[in-house]
Amino acid sequence: MSRKLIIQKYGGSSVANVERIQNVAKRVAGYKKNSHNLVVVVSALGDTTDELIELASKINTEPSEREMDMLLSTGEQISVALLAMALHKLGIEAISFTGAQVGIVTDSSHTRARIIKINADRIRDELKKGRVVIVAGFQGVTLTQDITTLGRGGSDLTAVALAKELKADECEIYTDVEGIYTTDPRIEPKAKKIDAITYDEMLEMASLGAQVMQARSIEVAKKFDVPIHVRSSFSPNCGTMIIKEVKRMEDVVVSGVTLNKNEAKITICNVPDRPGIAAKLFKGLSSSGINVDMIVQNVSHLRSTDISFTVSKAEFPKALRITRKAAKAIGAGDVLDDQDIARVSVVGVGMKTHSGVAAKMFDALAKDKINIEMISTSDISISCIIQKKFAEAAVKTLHSKFGLAK
Amino acid sequence: MSRKLIIQKYGGSSVANVERIQNVAKRVAGYKKNSHNLVVVVSALGDTTDELIELASKINTEPSEREMDMLLSTGEQISVALLAMALHKLGIEAISFTGAQVGIVTDSSHTRARIIKINADRIRDELKKGRVVIVAGFQGVTLTQDITTLGRGGSDLTAVALAKELKADECEIYTDVEGIYTTDPRIEPKAKKIDAITYDEMLEMASLGAQVMQARSIEVAKKFDVPIHVRSSFSPNCGTMIIKEVKRMEDVVVSGVTLNKNEAKITICNVPDRPGIAAKLFKGLSSSGINVDMIVQNVSHLRSTDISFTVSKAEFPKALRITRKAAKAIGAGDVLDDQDIARVSVVGVGMKTHSGVAAKMFDALAKDKINIEMISTSDISISCIIQKKFAEAAVKTLHSKFGLAK
Repeated sequence: MSRKLIIQKYGGSSVANVERIQNVAKRVAGYKKNSHNLVVVVSALGDTTDELIELASKINTEPSEREMDMLLSTGEQISVALLAMALHKLGIEAISFTGAQVGIVTDSSHTRARIIKINADRIRDELKKGRVVIVAGFQGVTLTQDITTLGRGGSDLTAVALAKELKADECEIYTDVEGIYTTDPRIEPKAKKIDAITYDEMLEMASLGAQVMQARSIEVAKKFDVPIHVRSSFSPNCGTMIIKEVKRMEDVVVSGVTLNKNEAKITICNVPDRPGIAAKLFKGLSSSGINVDMIVQNVSHLRSTDISFTVSKAEFPKALRITRKAAKAIGAGDVLDDQDIARVSVVGVGMKTHSGVAAKMFDALAKDKINIEMISTSDISISCIIQKKFAEAAVKTLHSKFGLAK
Repeated sequence: MSRKLIIQKYGGSSVANVERIQNVAKRVAGYKKNSHNLVVVVSALGDTTDELIELASKINTEPSEREMDMLLSTGEQISVALLAMALHKLGIEAISFTGAQVGIVTDSSHTRARIIKINADRIRDELKKGRVVIVAGFQGVTLTQDITTLGRGGSDLTAVALAKELKADECEIYTDVEGIYTTDPRIEPKAKKIDAITYDEMLEMASLGAQVMQARSIEVAKKFDVPIHVRSSFSPNCGTMIIKEVKRMEDVVVSGVTLNKNEAKITICNVPDRPGIAAKLFKGLSSSGINVDMIVQNVSHLRSTDISFTVSKAEFPKALRITRKAAKAIGAGDVLDDQDIARVSVVGVGMKTHSGVAAKMFDALAKDKINIEMISTSDISISCIIQKKFAEAAVKTLHSKFGLAK
């Protein structure tokens, strides 16, 4: 067997308690005994990060972002030390490092820093000594030695960036599910694990609500062509490969169905049909840091039109307040809102070359008497906003219609 | 009022919970409003360190010292971030740092590292910007960027070392008592707070059981002549100054009475009276890392003698095992042990020039019918081993005899 360099990343649920840390150590030890070189990236134990955030909120409801990074980065530091101890117990040579210690240099955008470069000399030295190198995920350090964190999904990003920098043979992302599924198995028990999926498909799935990996890490993996293996830390089975191009035995038009129930819809009626009006409407939202997701504007009639858009539920109250003000300012009509919506989407690179996917989707929903309120499409996905009560039924019907349970 | 540079150190009990952290912030803010420059050294929150040690012990009963340092150093990192947030809440500019970030460079003796140098440029820069600088106590970093800890009482050491490096005007050690007392107030309610005490006296008191400060920090303070103010974080009162020389209105012969009930006594009977025998006896103990405290050997009679010594109770079982083996090897007689002992001591620089202190001490104990089992003296202290049941009575009688309650 050839000697490979493997990067493994274990999320918070994989190291939630002593027993699970020991399990991870056993798995790592198994790889090590097969003579592979290993760099292991670890997240904070279970709910540690949330607990630290709560502690901070008791002291300051608007804590400084630099100090939050100082605080939260301790979570991963605890994990790496404990995993090193667990490996030592198994007789495996291992050494733990913070992001700062392995030279993960970032910009100074605290709580959402971007990696500038990695000075991986120390990692290479320790690998040469035959040690398992354990790296705290989610964190880095600025050129002035201030500790930063990389934002949500940051540990995945650490793993992907290290895989790129060290020219690793494999990058494994361990999680509490077996891989990427054709849809959420909790909704559709017939959902099947996908063996391989392209970066682009995964990006659509990630941004559309599949929560296994954050879009940002996949973007970086795509940029540097780092193949990712998403798999379960609780089972020996292979998971899902995320790669550049998937060679399939037969054409698969749709790879998965995703569902997002975490959005709300706002509609502005009778918007005057003049250039610059849409810009005015959305400027207030964007300057308040609100992420607008789907935007739909139909053709106008009688010199006015309706504009609808969705935002996350967390930002909905603020977005509604700002929109009402903006609507008044531009002389639009009523502002309607609906929090009981869901977005159901079909994703697949095969769509690019196949027509009729949209028609098939709309037809399937119509047959189940599910009304479509908004439609939005990308190169490799089609999304429909429907009433939330139909969400699960829609996922099941689409999953079956596109033959994903086969 | 002149602008001073003040180093303050707050121990774990001073930052045990959110409310106490806020109290510390208020105190710091008060100093800051008086235009002082402030560097604040903080220990880990309350029992954090013990909790982390327990967590580690569940994974590996003999954890690597390097990884323990990695783990434990997170405790102080959490404290400094939270204190910075609490200060921000009060409108005070503050910034937190780990030991590594403020260049506290140590040797690589993990869990008990010694400070080699401090590159305090970053601290000076931040002080110039008018910020309160908050530094994680107890920790440093090697030249190869490995995190170290300084051992017990390490945060005091951080404060004293920073005071020396930054040429601070004052070094305040905040604790949960009002200062150094003539004896333990829980034993003798008439105990009085000492206004000023010399380094040497404090060293004797520290090594003899007064637990306010570790001997090591006092040694460093003495070496570099850093005046220390030990005081309570729960009260505005002045505490005890630890300084080079104390000018007193009238001569004080004895400054304090200390008690240590945490030792056990071992006696080896009929030790052959030949050169090198004592060395053989204690070599085994020292190579096992056991600290032998008091050693008493009396004049020999009939070519053999008895040797007694004390060790801490924690190390007693191991010490006894080793001693029995050694006694057999050198042809000595029985090995006796006694765990029901206490050591009571009187300390004072005044002793150097006053005779009769020992006689007065023995006389006071004799009058109370307290038998003395061992005697040991230093330049500025006299210690007696007595039966533990007389410990509190001995403290009270000596405290009164030497006029400390006046």
